[in-house]
Amino acid sequence: MDDRIYFEDLVVGETETYGTYEVTEDEIVAFAEQYDPQWFHTDPEAAEESIYGGLIASGWHTASMTMRLIVDEHFSNAAVLGAAGLEELAWPNPTRPGDVLSAEIELLEKRVSESKPDRGLVTTRTTTSDETGERKLQMVSVSLYALRNGD
Amino acid sequence: MDDRIYFEDLVVGETETYGTYEVTEDEIVAFAEQYDPQWFHTDPEAAEESIYGGLIASGWHTASMTMRLIVDEHFSNAAVLGAAGLEELAWPNPTRPGDVLSAEIELLEKRVSESKPDRGLVTTRTTTSDETGERKLQMVSVSLYALRNGD
Repeated sequence: MDDRIYFEDLVVGETETYGTYEVTEDEIVAFAEQYDPQWFHTDPEAAEESIYGGLIASGWHTASMTMRLIVDEHFSNAAVLGAAGLEELAWPNPTRPGDVLSAEIELLEKRVSESKPDRGLVTTRTTTSDETGERKLQMVSVSLYALRNGD
Repeated sequence: MDDRIYFEDLVVGETETYGTYEVTEDEIVAFAEQYDPQWFHTDPEAAEESIYGGLIASGWHTASMTMRLIVDEHFSNAAVLGAAGLEELAWPNPTRPGDVLSAEIELLEKRVSESKPDRGLVTTRTTTSDETGERKLQMVSVSLYALRNGD
């Protein structure tokens, strides 16, 4: 029996929290050197003189760490087909070395696709925060899930 | 003399294209194993049975590769302070091994910050496409630039 989470299992209004992800200086620098080599992401000493007062993670890194939490604790056991896109993405505060991130996911809306009735569109709000509750990332995204009875 | 690109230098309506970034299977798998370990991003053989018909890059990877193009060819020579957020982000087609990406950036709007008049908010539309023109990512983002004469 397939016990994965399908479109039918998702309940609008439910909230789940996934975590934790410990952010290190080494990982911030490694990600940034490959994908976002701006000095306030790659050079801890120079970053002290930035408007942030210290090294901060690339926003794409914060998004990627958030994704890892969601995959490990939800998508890996769900009949998810991929992502359609985001309606918004904000970084209200920077992510710094030593932050311990967790992601809260609220299910806002779901509907069966009109063009492809074997799948559904699920809209969620994700809020990533550190251990003190400071918000690091907020996004509203639309994901595709398979229907259990949608063949 | 500081010859970086400041807020005052940016012209609404202008479009620039940055590139290129060659996407490899190894990099798709490496990124996904760290940040988005869904099977259609990490397992080339299994991915052939997915709705995509083959391995595809994590959407966060496509966004990160796009960021690298923008940093290398623009932000590295600009007085950019960071990102405020995105108003939308869509992945109209999946990114696949062998794709050669470039990013087109259109400047939609700019305005000086009301609360912090030493910086300005710049809204751009980014479209990432492969060598055939197939669109892989589209986003509207807001970035912060320093004013040259904003001390």
